[in-house]
Parts: sequence; C-alpha cells; structure tokens
Amino acid sequence: MELGPHSRPAEPGRCVSGSPSAGSAFPASRVSAAGAEPGSRPTAVAAVLPAGGCGERMGVRTPKQFCRVLERPLISYTLQALERVCWIKDIVVAVTGENMEAMRNIIQRYGHKRISLAEAGATRHRSIFSGLKALAEDQPDCKLTKPEVVIIHDAVRPFVEEDVLLRVVMAAKEHGAAGAIRPLVSTVISPAADGCLDHALDRAKHRASEMPQAFLFDVIYEAYQQCSDYDLEFGTECLQLALKYCHTKAKLVEGPPELWKVTYKQDLYAAESLIKEKISQEICVVVKTKDEESVGHLLKEVLKNELNCATITSTALDHSGGDIQNFLTDQCCSFIWVTVLSSDFQETRKFLTALEESSLPLLYPVVVVLVHCLDFTLVPPAQKMESLMWIRGLAKEVKKRNVLLSGLLINYSQDLYYGS
Amino acid sequence: MELGPHSRPAEPGRCVSGSPSAGSAFPASRVSAAGAEPGSRPTAVAAVLPAGGCGERMGVRTPKQFCRVLERPLISYTLQALERVCWIKDIVVAVTGENMEAMRNIIQRYGHKRISLAEAGATRHRSIFSGLKALAEDQPDCKLTKPEVVIIHDAVRPFVEEDVLLRVVMAAKEHGAAGAIRPLVSTVISPAADGCLDHALDRAKHRASEMPQAFLFDVIYEAYQQCSDYDLEFGTECLQLALKYCHTKAKLVEGPPELWKVTYKQDLYAAESLIKEKISQEICVVVKTKDEESVGHLLKEVLKNELNCATITSTALDHSGGDIQNFLTDQCCSFIWVTVLSSDFQETRKFLTALEESSLPLLYPVVVVLVHCLDFTLVPPAQKMESLMWIRGLAKEVKKRNVLLSGLLINYSQDLYYGS
Repeated sequence: MELGPHSRPAEPGRCVSGSPSAGSAFPASRVSAAGAEPGSRPTAVAAVLPAGGCGERMGVRTPKQFCRVLERPLISYTLQALERVCWIKDIVVAVTGENMEAMRNIIQRYGHKRISLAEAGATRHRSIFSGLKALAEDQPDCKLTKPEVVIIHDAVRPFVEEDVLLRVVMAAKEHGAAGAIRPLVSTVISPAADGCLDHALDRAKHRASEMPQAFLFDVIYEAYQQCSDYDLEFGTECLQLALKYCHTKAKLVEGPPELWKVTYKQDLYAAESLIKEKISQEICVVVKTKDEESVGHLLKEVLKNELNCATITSTALDHSGGDIQNFLTDQCCSFIWVTVLSSDFQETRKFLTALEESSLPLLYPVVVVLVHCLDFTLVPPAQKMESLMWIRGLAKEVKKRNVLLSGLLINYSQDLYYGS
Repeated sequence: MELGPHSRPAEPGRCVSGSPSAGSAFPASRVSAAGAEPGSRPTAVAAVLPAGGCGERMGVRTPKQFCRVLERPLISYTLQALERVCWIKDIVVAVTGENMEAMRNIIQRYGHKRISLAEAGATRHRSIFSGLKALAEDQPDCKLTKPEVVIIHDAVRPFVEEDVLLRVVMAAKEHGAAGAIRPLVSTVISPAADGCLDHALDRAKHRASEMPQAFLFDVIYEAYQQCSDYDLEFGTECLQLALKYCHTKAKLVEGPPELWKVTYKQDLYAAESLIKEKISQEICVVVKTKDEESVGHLLKEVLKNELNCATITSTALDHSGGDIQNFLTDQCCSFIWVTVLSSDFQETRKFLTALEESSLPLLYPVVVVLVHCLDFTLVPPAQKMESLMWIRGLAKEVKKRNVLLSGLLINYSQDLYYGS
C-alpha cells in the first residue's frame, strides 16, 4: 500500500508542525528520533525553488509552474506546501526576469509569506545557483541569513508533505546531502548512435531521482561554485554535483508517489483531481447556537454514514464566542450551515461575509449548503418562496468570490424539534 | 510541441485505418512510405497484452487494469484502441485464472472482438510467453494463426494510437524488434548498498522504454523459449531478451506522452480527464428533416463561436434515409436534438431509443440536449409545462442507460422561422 489518506495542507504561513513560536526549531521529539541530541541548537533551514522553466514539454505557451489548476497557478500550491512547514525560514524562488512581475502578483494575491525572488538562469542548475547566492552571506546585497541546511524543490511538485521534507533535511544534516527517490515505472534503456537499443538497465538496481533534496548549505554552495560551465549547462542532478565536487554521497530517501513532477497535460489533470479530492475530504456542519447543536450532530451522523471517505465535523457558533473566523483556519472548504426554526437570515449573511473575506476562497473553491429548517405549518408559502429567491440572489453574488452556494428549506415541526 | 489535438478512438471492431475488407493488409501508401514494396504480401499482425498484474502499486485491491474509469474497466479502453486498428488480426490477453471470468464478462459486455484469452503467469515475462504460445503453431491446442509480427502492449496504457502501432510494426519488420521510447522526466540514479548515491546517469544518454513494442514473431518466441528462469522471474524488458538471445537490436521509436503507464491513483485521475476531454471534443447537432436544416446550421455556427475546442457537426435525419443508426457510428458522444414548431415527441423518443440500443452509452456517458423550438403565442402554457414534465420523466428513464438528457423549450415564432 503506497497510497494512504492525505494529510491536508494548511493555509500559507500557518504552522502545522508544532508551535509557531518554535520558529526554526524542529519538534524536539522528531529531532531525537532522527538521532540528533534533543535540545541541541535548532537547524536553520531555507528552501530554493527553481521556477525558470519554459514549459515546452507541456505543449502550451504558459510555463507549467504558472498553469492554472482550479484557477490558481500551480506554483502557488507548491509555495503553500512549503510555507505550512514552520521550520523553513526562507523560500527563494528563482524566476526569469520576464516572469518576475507575474510572480510578485501571485505572492501578493495568495498572501504567500517568507518568499524572496532571485533571477533564474538559462538552465535549471544556473537558477538553483542564483537562488543559493541569495542565501549566501558572501554576496554583497544579500538580505537573508545563510541557513545550515537548504532544501531544493521543484515548483511543479505541489504535493510535498512535511514528513518527506523533514526526512531529507535530517538525512542531509547527517550525510551532507539527501534526496527523495522513487522506484522506476518504466525500464531505462541506453540507445546506440544508430537509434537502436544498446542495452537495457536492470530496473531493480536503479531509481528515479525526485525532489525534494536537501544539502548542508556549505556543501552544495561550494559544489556550485566549483562546477564547470558544462555542468551548469547540461547537468540535471544536484546530488551528482555534491558527489563530484565535495565527495558527499547523498542519502537516498524513499518518497511517496505524489511527489511526481507535473510535466505533461495529463499531469495537470491529475494534479487538479488530487486537489479536488483533498478539499472534498472534510465537511464542517455549522449551527448558530448551542441550542441547535443536536440538529447539527444528527446531520453529522447521517453524513458520516453516507460519505465514507470524508471527515465530518460539527461546530456551534456560540462555542467559539460567535467568532466565525475561528473555524475558518483549518482548510475545510465545504460547509453546511444549518438554521432551525428561524427566518432571520442576518447570521447567515454574516457567516458568508466572513467566508468571503477570509483567504479561503482565494485558495480553493468553497462549497456552502444552507439548510434552513422551518415549520411549514407556521410559515406561509409566499415567505418560503421569498427565502428561496433570497438564497438564489445570494448564490449569484458570492459566486464571484469563489463561494459556491446552494440552499435547502426543510420542513421541521416544532414538536419534532423539542421532542428530539 | 509534444501535445497535439487527439484523434478520436472509434468503437470496437470498427476499422479506421482503411477499408475493413483490406483485412490484415496495411494501407498500401503507408507500407510504401515505410520503405516496403507496394503490393507486397500483407503482414499478419497479432497483439499480446499481459494483464496479470495485481495492482499493488495503486494501493487498491482491484488490479489497476480492472479499475473503472467513467464506469468502464481501464483494460476495455486499451482493447478498444487496439481493435480499431483493422490490421491487428488477433489480440491475446493474458489474465490470471482468478480474473478469467471477469475478463470474459468485460469482453461480452463491451462487445470486444478478435480477443483470445491465455492464462497469465506469475510475472510479466511469463504472462507474455503464455500469450505468445497461444499464437505459436507448435502448441497442440492452438486455434490462432501464427503472425509474422507480434505487438506487445500493456493493458494499462489505453491511449495508444494507430500511428505509433504502425511505426513499431514497420520498424520490427525491418529490424526484428522495435519499441516506443520517451525522454526521461527524472534523472535516474544508481544507489549503493548503504542506501547512498553511487552515481547518477546522464539523462540525455538514456530513455524510458515504454509500450507498444513489436517483434518478428519468430524472434521474440525464440528468445522466450531460450531465456533462463532468472530472466522470466526478474526481467522487465522484452527488447533486452531479443538482444540477448537472438542478437536482435531493437529499433527505438519516439512515442507521444499519452503512452504513459497508468500506475498510481493520480494516473487513473489523469486517464479519466483525458477520456472526458476526448469525448467532449465533438458535438453533433441533429435536426429531423431537411426543412429544419437552416436552424441546425445556425445553431452549429453559434456553438462553433462559443466552443473553440470542439468540433461541431450537424446532420438532418432524412439525409440518411431516417436511419438514426447511421450517425451513431462515429464516436460522437454529445448530441443536440432540435425540433422546430412540432409538439410531436415521437421522433425524439425514437432517437433516444436508437441511442440507448446502440453500443455508445455502454462505452461512454452520452449527453443529449433536446431543443424544442415552439411558437409560444400558439402553444398554451399547460402544454409547455407538460412538455417539460415529459422531458424530465424521460431524463430519469434514460439515465439508467448512461444517457444524460436535458431539455430546453425555446420561443421561436413562425414568422421568424419562415423569414430566416
């Protein structure tokens, strides 16, 4: 079983790996588990993302890292995945001068934090070198602090989780260099000059080198400073540079299949489906007051039975002191908003406004189902129709902000309510 | 540009590469283009599909070739892709005894033709050998004719097109063996025994060996007969067997990225999206009679402007002698059925029945939009409501057969009609 349930990415800047106040420190338990002394000096970690590629393999004009997936550029998902790891202090993205402005707009629009930009070179290696220079203190205009360990990751591998990042960083601390690998899906062959097979490689003895990789900063920076123009122009493997120029044998770390590199059109489709799957895995049932909690709980139980693969939570607003923002921090993108025997839509409107004003609908499409439980014997038909028209108008309005709203009126007699 | 517009697969058994009566012959022009003598003896070609894998990499219980994509098992798409190539005479599928019955059901349900089953072995090489034996005349119970060239393809590569099949077959005729290759997406490395990097391979000097491959039957059959148990157990590359045991250097043929092997969950998502894309690329506007053709034409032009990426065709039923079956052969899965100033739904019902009874909704979800143009000044509101209710009832009924129906009533005054 190589695929397990995914953990959910948090919003940019939110720390899921421990207390945000821990800053650049690893959680102590994990550090000791990886063999280091508990309580030892925290490791300063930064990341470099080469994003200068022109996307020619995708067969489209837009470089693949800027292709939109659910309306958001692919690179924004990758940045989000790195930002949620609070012990990564700086993230340097190397983009071409041509795309610098577009990249700045992406950072601003999606609220990315801890990002610095460097100018990409003509090849992947030159872009990485440029990113490393931005972190090296020997450069005249460097504003960042030199890290002990630097992660190198691709802009087009958005599904990187904290676990594998931690594993490559810990291995790099120990070995000087480390990189994620995967089993080969296809056999690799070596062609002869005449376009015929020269020989096939033993699949069991080889691996695909994926990302992320991590290095002691001094090791990889020295390797780049020493390496030849030929390496910078035609090389493809940072681990090989560390080996060749610093005699550092990288530790190889088995990564999950979701680390794959978005390269072709079908990979963009796959990325979109995986993101949709992730944001469908959690549904939050919200009721207005503690009095209505039994209804929310009932609905939660019904949904749990119907939707096996989703996590259903429920919350009452007055639990959290009525502060809607409190439960909008958890990357849940699907809400069921329940009101019981109330025709007052003010709270509903407030909830939707809070949603719209949060960063959530910027990052993902947000689905809201309004469930209004009314006693139909007490409410005249004209009022029901009016409620439905109100919901329809609201749906049209919030759709502009990426909130997909639908509504239900449910007959719910007072006797039944107080009886339950 | 590696990705171009896709050509559409035809339904199983339909020959798109030339006249079906040509049997196993290649189209003469293509054969001569590939260097052979025009008019020379046609090449007998068969295909072997190893489908004995257990799908452990997918992380699900169902072997990946039997995983459903838009409700249909993945292997059925691959069989369909091979069947549409009329010069492939026999297709031998090697499945485990455990899945034999399921495979027979798939063949029957989706109307696959020219398929024979062989029992898969414990490894991929053993399954291929088993498939080859079914085609070898030296086997006692062989019912098939030995082909000159045999294609080996994977059950989990459904997007194989006739073009690449033809290219590997022609190359195999000339060189004895041939296989599709792709550039490497990731650098390949060789790990040392301690789990550290031993060395990285030069990405430019290596390729991923993909499928399809093709061989002179005698070459690959001899290779399998001679090869060791170790090869059968641990080998992964048929081209290597031909090289090692028959000194045949396979010609390497560059294939398109859609040849990739569906291996992980994200690949299934990608396959589903590619299939959806393909079946959305053609919309057929159907009108009942030649008199109504101007309306169909108008609608076609409007749709052409609105939907840039789709091919829009239009047809009038009495063109084809009223035989609805005539235009259901072309793999178009989206229809707009237009009636003008007629409240007679009999023809509409007939059209839907013909659709339901065709093999089309078995293979793909079929979308039908009924557009009824009525003169609202002449039709009483009650009749309009009745029409809508009738469409709704019909939609519910045909959905069971994978036909997704929606309907529109459009106000269309007689003056306007005769004036246009």
